[in-house]
Amino acid sequence: MTPLGDVRAIPEATPGEIRLRMRRGEWPGPTAGLALGHAQANLVVLPKAVAYDFLVFCQRNPKPCPLIETTDPGSPEPKFAAPGADLRTDLPRYRVYRRGRLEAEETDIIKHWTPDLVAFLLGCSFTFESAMQHAGLPVRHLEDRRNVPMYVTTLRCRPAGALHGPVVVSMRPLPLAEVPRAILVTGRYPWAHGAPVHVGDPEAIGIADLSRPDFGDPPRVERGEVPVFWACGVTSQAVARAAKVDLMITHAPGHMFITDLLDEDLASG
Amino acid sequence: MTPLGDVRAIPEATPGEIRLRMRRGEWPGPTAGLALGHAQANLVVLPKAVAYDFLVFCQRNPKPCPLIETTDPGSPEPKFAAPGADLRTDLPRYRVYRRGRLEAEETDIIKHWTPDLVAFLLGCSFTFESAMQHAGLPVRHLEDRRNVPMYVTTLRCRPAGALHGPVVVSMRPLPLAEVPRAILVTGRYPWAHGAPVHVGDPEAIGIADLSRPDFGDPPRVERGEVPVFWACGVTSQAVARAAKVDLMITHAPGHMFITDLLDEDLASG
Repeated sequence: MTPLGDVRAIPEATPGEIRLRMRRGEWPGPTAGLALGHAQANLVVLPKAVAYDFLVFCQRNPKPCPLIETTDPGSPEPKFAAPGADLRTDLPRYRVYRRGRLEAEETDIIKHWTPDLVAFLLGCSFTFESAMQHAGLPVRHLEDRRNVPMYVTTLRCRPAGALHGPVVVSMRPLPLAEVPRAILVTGRYPWAHGAPVHVGDPEAIGIADLSRPDFGDPPRVERGEVPVFWACGVTSQAVARAAKVDLMITHAPGHMFITDLLDEDLASG
Repeated sequence: MTPLGDVRAIPEATPGEIRLRMRRGEWPGPTAGLALGHAQANLVVLPKAVAYDFLVFCQRNPKPCPLIETTDPGSPEPKFAAPGADLRTDLPRYRVYRRGRLEAEETDIIKHWTPDLVAFLLGCSFTFESAMQHAGLPVRHLEDRRNVPMYVTTLRCRPAGALHGPVVVSMRPLPLAEVPRAILVTGRYPWAHGAPVHVGDPEAIGIADLSRPDFGDPPRVERGEVPVFWACGVTSQAVARAAKVDLMITHAPGHMFITDLLDEDLASG
């Protein structure tokens, strides 16, 4: 176990060690760069009554919603992605929504947990960004230490029951010559959003102004670069919020669940 | 529309034309080789009460159970894989199970259909076998015009609710030198079982005698060849049958649903 509070030592810690710190409230910050090589995940917690529609929604929209874990109703343990972990305490920060409205931001969700809740983990862009970096591809918002820009598009998700809405995308600008490699590298990870859903012309997918993202920070796009758009995990949250489900709990943006899985476990094969 | 009964003309027909013939009862036979280039699918129909567990089971076991469609409860239309098709009539042959027992074999399931049923389509090995053939790899049971041999293994599925059981695999023997290429070629199709789950030593996965498969025909394995095992869609049926669900309807073996999707739509990317 690395000494308490030694931030620089955290990247060397195992997923289990890092989760234990979060459980103790010792790591309230974002998770980018932690436990490198291990897959991080989006968290969505919903009542069982809505879980069926959510499962079907994810099945119908695997690019924005690549489901890697469904807990047993009432159980906060992700038995596949991190046996022994507790999804009520092992993330640094949560958001609690009631009937579509943000009600609270919490560092644990013990007091919100009920036996009818189901937790879902969805693969996250950190996995394919790591693969891009290993391939020598630039990841602009990481270079600039900013949040990735995200946009609500005119692409529609395939609906499921009460759940419907637009595909939300994240954008990373790339030199034109690097686009094919970026497509191949990220396309290897169908459980982490896979290949881009769109390349170039933002207006073709309903984005009027690249410099004004709906979430995250405005991008820096250089001359000779093209915007490349990947389906984004925020889609699932946006859809459940729009459906005004009684209760939805998610990770706070950038404060992901760190799994025991390797990034490679989210690859095809 | 090709003339009635002209079997040789069928491979040139579109998926929609072939389904229409099946709907009219004009094509009761197996579907191998039909609508080449288009993905065929396993059918599993279950009451909504079991559908939640089945969805979670597929999410937890994507290699044997690669889910490509979930219909809305009561609707027999696979809106994604074949808009306008009717899953009650558009397969050549069905099997009806009640409480785990085979009750009937039918050429349509109109009289069994109720508003609480959900139909699931799962990707099928025909997709990756076609890719193997395009890559010049031998597919032994096709060369020999036999059924693929299938085996119940000691590999366990991750359980979901009432559903649990062993992974069933199909086996194709390959010259050792061809194994890497077969892994790469089939690994491109995560929605059609993906890469093999095991190569070589059958006993390591609980198969005592390769020459006595649990389903299908005994294989011909030549000197210098190694058995290669892929997760098989029969797994999902075996698991639902073992759970003695009130009603399960499946395609009859080899009598698949022909989708409008291309094989390539089941690839990663």
